[in-house]
Amino acid sequence: MSTIIFKRKPRIIGWYSVAGKKESEGPLGETFSRVVKDEYFGEKTHEGAERKFFITAIQGAIQSAGVQPDIVFAGDLLNQIVSSSFAMREIGLPYVGVYGACSTMALSLLVAATFVDAGVVHTTVAAAGSHFATAERQYRTPLEFGNQRPPTSQWTVTGAGATVLSDRGKSKIAVTGGTIGRVVDFGVKDVNNMGAAMAPAAADTLARHFENTKTKPSDYDAIFSGDLGQIGEEALRDLLKEKGYDLGENYYDCGKLIYAEQQKVDMGGSGCGCSAVTLNGFILNKFQKGEYHKIIFMATGALLSPTTTFQGETTPGIANAVVIEEVTE
Amino acid sequence: MSTIIFKRKPRIIGWYSVAGKKESEGPLGETFSRVVKDEYFGEKTHEGAERKFFITAIQGAIQSAGVQPDIVFAGDLLNQIVSSSFAMREIGLPYVGVYGACSTMALSLLVAATFVDAGVVHTTVAAAGSHFATAERQYRTPLEFGNQRPPTSQWTVTGAGATVLSDRGKSKIAVTGGTIGRVVDFGVKDVNNMGAAMAPAAADTLARHFENTKTKPSDYDAIFSGDLGQIGEEALRDLLKEKGYDLGENYYDCGKLIYAEQQKVDMGGSGCGCSAVTLNGFILNKFQKGEYHKIIFMATGALLSPTTTFQGETTPGIANAVVIEEVTE
Repeated sequence: MSTIIFKRKPRIIGWYSVAGKKESEGPLGETFSRVVKDEYFGEKTHEGAERKFFITAIQGAIQSAGVQPDIVFAGDLLNQIVSSSFAMREIGLPYVGVYGACSTMALSLLVAATFVDAGVVHTTVAAAGSHFATAERQYRTPLEFGNQRPPTSQWTVTGAGATVLSDRGKSKIAVTGGTIGRVVDFGVKDVNNMGAAMAPAAADTLARHFENTKTKPSDYDAIFSGDLGQIGEEALRDLLKEKGYDLGENYYDCGKLIYAEQQKVDMGGSGCGCSAVTLNGFILNKFQKGEYHKIIFMATGALLSPTTTFQGETTPGIANAVVIEEVTE
Repeated sequence: MSTIIFKRKPRIIGWYSVAGKKESEGPLGETFSRVVKDEYFGEKTHEGAERKFFITAIQGAIQSAGVQPDIVFAGDLLNQIVSSSFAMREIGLPYVGVYGACSTMALSLLVAATFVDAGVVHTTVAAAGSHFATAERQYRTPLEFGNQRPPTSQWTVTGAGATVLSDRGKSKIAVTGGTIGRVVDFGVKDVNNMGAAMAPAAADTLARHFENTKTKPSDYDAIFSGDLGQIGEEALRDLLKEKGYDLGENYYDCGKLIYAEQQKVDMGGSGCGCSAVTLNGFILNKFQKGEYHKIIFMATGALLSPTTTFQGETTPGIANAVVIEEVTE
């Protein structure tokens, strides 16, 4: 069984989000810990900027927790996850690289929580991030090319988020469980329609989660998907309805929350950073204010590479679900 | 602290290695579970072949264990670790992607063992692999280019290995602990000298491991590094001597073990597959025969990407150490 229930209920003792200019102008703008309007973040390259977003988020989260962590779990979208690895060169702590495409924030949280739950370490950090310009260059075409964006496309979020988990500290916000994703492929070949490619994996993970935990959507204050966007969100609702679950009013997609309609982002936001900054801003702030008591944070990823697309492969998806809740004991 | 001690001592209940023609002709040829001499493994592309090596190793390990696992932890060297992800599309089990460059076999083992140790699942699989032709194409130049190999270069192993860990079963071989690596960069810019780039990270991990566990090299029947090769192995010996540890006679590098001198591989083997097939062949077979009782398996990785190299960055290294031992209880 791939649904996990944590005995120790690792506590979230710190978090931090740093986002770019466009993100700061969207509906979640006020919820980010920091906004950096320079897309280069003072660096020479966009890749250097992405790395600096990572360093800022991880250091910010550690500072907000006030505890030195044992291990950092992080991943990103660049080849060989170099944003995470080069950020960790600066930070100097032990490091586990994880890769789940845009599902990485949920994946790193689940793995980081498991290390705390096992009792092998006390404090861990989970982090993920992305940058619009590096993702366009690597997955599609460099910005200078001036490519036209098809209407099904999504806008990669510039930003990074980090969460500190611990078996120590007084926080009442805990990671209590989750469900690990399976790779699901419905045969989507259009690399500008990631929402459709990821929705079947999201439906698979959520349905297994509900079944294994004997819960239903209305048992949660909110359910968040990572970056399905408009098309993917509708597909997820339909697919889950077929499996007997009605997502109802409390379901949100981070990709739809993060930008306003007039920002012209087509189907919504995407990238590791999309769910990472939404979790480590909007969502955890809601817990802090007592407005949320139990939610599912499920980030979704498309596991393609440009090479697999060139070789005619379809796009497999994955989704990892994490339960975050307020605990009393 | 980043040294982990497992309470449950997750048992190794199955393993499998599948290697290519050149590897079968080396000194470890007899130890692999299966040899596939066709570099395409019946597929149209080398990338497709790499994926098939993965599927073969994971399915072989599961079959040898005779237990259905809950989660598979895997990673590889290709962009977006597509060999692992696309293999998992076929296998269908829940999947956590990890990335530690050539340290991935040790990293996936440590993470897979932690999930069993936490008691959140019963049985997990750790896997890693690589392919000579896909690595040359992605990191250096396609084979058709006929690039000359400098004498410091290493030869990427074609093959994959998988290990099944469980809290169930009668096996006496256990993963009892390990040390998670830090990213260490000594400023090496030569992408054809990975051994030199990885040795400082290996020295950092081993020294921390000895210190944290109050052990010394002679407490182990053998210590294996992943793929430091000739130059890296000598550098590791020297760096550890400076820290007060003499690796002595029981230290081996998988990159040096896997090929014979007359196979013209310069400094030795490399790639995720190098340590993966050595562990899931030579090393675990020795445990089965009762010739090993306690070892350190430390795979090493160079965390670069072609993009970071083009942008003038140096090569950071990482090393993850796993303790495998025979247990009685």
